[in-house]
Amino acid sequence: MKKTNVCYFQSGGPTAVINSSLYGLLLGAKEKESSIGEVYGSLDGIEGIIEDRLIPLSSLSEATVSLLPQTPGVFLGSSRFKLHEDQQIWEKITKTLQKHDISLILANGGNDSMDTCDKLSRHLSDLGIRVVGIPKTIDNDLVLTDHCPGFASAAKHVINQVKLISIDAHSYKKGKVVIIEVMGREAGWLAASADLLPKPYHPDLIYLPEGEFSEREFLTEVQNQYERKGTCVVVVSEGIPVHHETLALYDSFGHASPEGAALELGKLVNKKLGLGVRTVILSTPVRANPFLTSKVDSEEAALLGKEALFAGLNGDTGVMVALERVSSSPYRCNVKKVKVGEVANKNRLFPKDWILSSSSMSNEFHEYLLPLVQGGIDVRMDESGCFLAARLEKK
Amino acid sequence: MKKTNVCYFQSGGPTAVINSSLYGLLLGAKEKESSIGEVYGSLDGIEGIIEDRLIPLSSLSEATVSLLPQTPGVFLGSSRFKLHEDQQIWEKITKTLQKHDISLILANGGNDSMDTCDKLSRHLSDLGIRVVGIPKTIDNDLVLTDHCPGFASAAKHVINQVKLISIDAHSYKKGKVVIIEVMGREAGWLAASADLLPKPYHPDLIYLPEGEFSEREFLTEVQNQYERKGTCVVVVSEGIPVHHETLALYDSFGHASPEGAALELGKLVNKKLGLGVRTVILSTPVRANPFLTSKVDSEEAALLGKEALFAGLNGDTGVMVALERVSSSPYRCNVKKVKVGEVANKNRLFPKDWILSSSSMSNEFHEYLLPLVQGGIDVRMDESGCFLAARLEKK
Repeated sequence: MKKTNVCYFQSGGPTAVINSSLYGLLLGAKEKESSIGEVYGSLDGIEGIIEDRLIPLSSLSEATVSLLPQTPGVFLGSSRFKLHEDQQIWEKITKTLQKHDISLILANGGNDSMDTCDKLSRHLSDLGIRVVGIPKTIDNDLVLTDHCPGFASAAKHVINQVKLISIDAHSYKKGKVVIIEVMGREAGWLAASADLLPKPYHPDLIYLPEGEFSEREFLTEVQNQYERKGTCVVVVSEGIPVHHETLALYDSFGHASPEGAALELGKLVNKKLGLGVRTVILSTPVRANPFLTSKVDSEEAALLGKEALFAGLNGDTGVMVALERVSSSPYRCNVKKVKVGEVANKNRLFPKDWILSSSSMSNEFHEYLLPLVQGGIDVRMDESGCFLAARLEKK
Repeated sequence: MKKTNVCYFQSGGPTAVINSSLYGLLLGAKEKESSIGEVYGSLDGIEGIIEDRLIPLSSLSEATVSLLPQTPGVFLGSSRFKLHEDQQIWEKITKTLQKHDISLILANGGNDSMDTCDKLSRHLSDLGIRVVGIPKTIDNDLVLTDHCPGFASAAKHVINQVKLISIDAHSYKKGKVVIIEVMGREAGWLAASADLLPKPYHPDLIYLPEGEFSEREFLTEVQNQYERKGTCVVVVSEGIPVHHETLALYDSFGHASPEGAALELGKLVNKKLGLGVRTVILSTPVRANPFLTSKVDSEEAALLGKEALFAGLNGDTGVMVALERVSSSPYRCNVKKVKVGEVANKNRLFPKDWILSSSSMSNEFHEYLLPLVQGGIDVRMDESGCFLAARLEKK
């Protein structure tokens, strides 16, 4: 039987476990050694396929592979390139794939990447090239999967940071209003995670993009909490509807930074209530902290990497591997396959009926999240007290 | 022999290991059981003594005590109250101390607190009450000690965050200018710590309050680095001389937040160079992260808590226990006692001759810091994936 050559790429924003999916895939490739020729890694997402920048992943040392689960960032490089009906681009893609005799593409990403996946599978089916998607996103906003690899570790980071910031804030009798901002432009899953904290660490207020938000009510709530307790800890998704003017920073594409809601609210509290404020924007460490990677998350990411490979080897195409929860207690998830076209460009928001008030989420959410944040990974350190990371010497 | 009653208080900003000093002190008290009556904890720093809010620390459960080394914040509550020549205050202090028959005060804090310590020891010597200081500060700015408990864990947090933010930032081919802001108003020890990172994780630029900073040169450096590498990672102390206008938040005392230098620089880069920017202000987790507490730091904090108790029991007063380095490799520090009046209100800045350029510190600094960030502590977790913390049920 002819051996299959595989091409894997990573796409979209980093998560703490995207490289665990690569790790799982490589373990799977070893198991299926007899039916696999080479697994290529495409550098910088789909761009590596377009520009013929592939590297044989068999060239990675065992030491490098073993570090993947604790390596933040996107190991092979990412891209936000969007595939359009550009004939030249498609010719380049086909050329690279044929040159390396690739008949299976594995794409690891979020909903934009699943759109890429969908287009690839439709364009390449005539050539007998199969395409399977592997989900990842800290935003937890993919449909047709119980949850997304990357979310639970980010949630665990949020829970722990909110607890330690809250304890820190309570060090003084006369406290401040502390406003903690968490990633999430449209979906509030991550900010909602802070609801898992018990009293007295539980935030006084939690605002998600999916919930109600009015400045007037926000100020009243803060005032009430502060009068009662001498402090007030607020957690907000970056995407809550406040007008941004303070931060106004731009990224490489000239897009305004989505960050800054906390700063606006902080200024409001300063000005309208005259209370002291501290703002903490959790920022990129949310998606890149090996010390708070969830074991369940890391293992599921690896499992999905492996299962995507197996699905592709078995002839599946145009599908994404996904998680289907069998039970929460004891926790058990099965792997299923869903049509990637039904995942692409859709957003799963935090269920409105799980928001009970401006300070609490439903028990259903707790049951949903609790099993996902269990356990950690052993992080190997270097001699300067820093975590070790796998590193790619790019061509 | 009459048993000694001791009163301990914590003061100033939190560090990751201030509660380790309390832990060490309590271990020491157990060792000297026969000569100690009660160890009282004063709530909210010196305010607890003024207002007679002391709690017997023998009432803490073993479980609570065992969690102190992984508990962020200031366990007994802190205060920034400054002692002046106010007769009424001194009468209250004396009254509380006499009521509880206290003859030894242990004060755990930074240079403001050592001033309090100095005043207490001079005012109370006639009453036969001894006062011993225990250093703590993430700023590492106390004189007459090799380094300060709390600094090394904060440095370890900085090193790890800069590495993971840097890896995250390199996930895209077309990168951003990433500006990471680290605590340090006057002393740049913490920002300098990022220099311990090897390439390719080493920041491209590091600016301390003690070094040179001009906007023009900063922009030239950023431009050069970005052209060469497609990204640029900058680490700055919050105290570098840039005009703050963006953040402009106020604390409970109406003081402007010292944070925000990164935002100003980010806007400058956006505006003058037209490059994409991400800013990350590391904020309070720097001083409160149990997952990156250094073992050496934790153990030294505990040792100094214990040694301060022993010094006081032996009749010392008006002193602070301090660290004296015997050698860096192998690392060994002795405990010495220094006059607290010579520590109070002084600032030890980062040595100017350890700043070699806008991107590197001297080898002497590496030799100084490296042994301090070694090892970690085992962090016990709860069932929601969060670190456990000791908690005081305040009266």
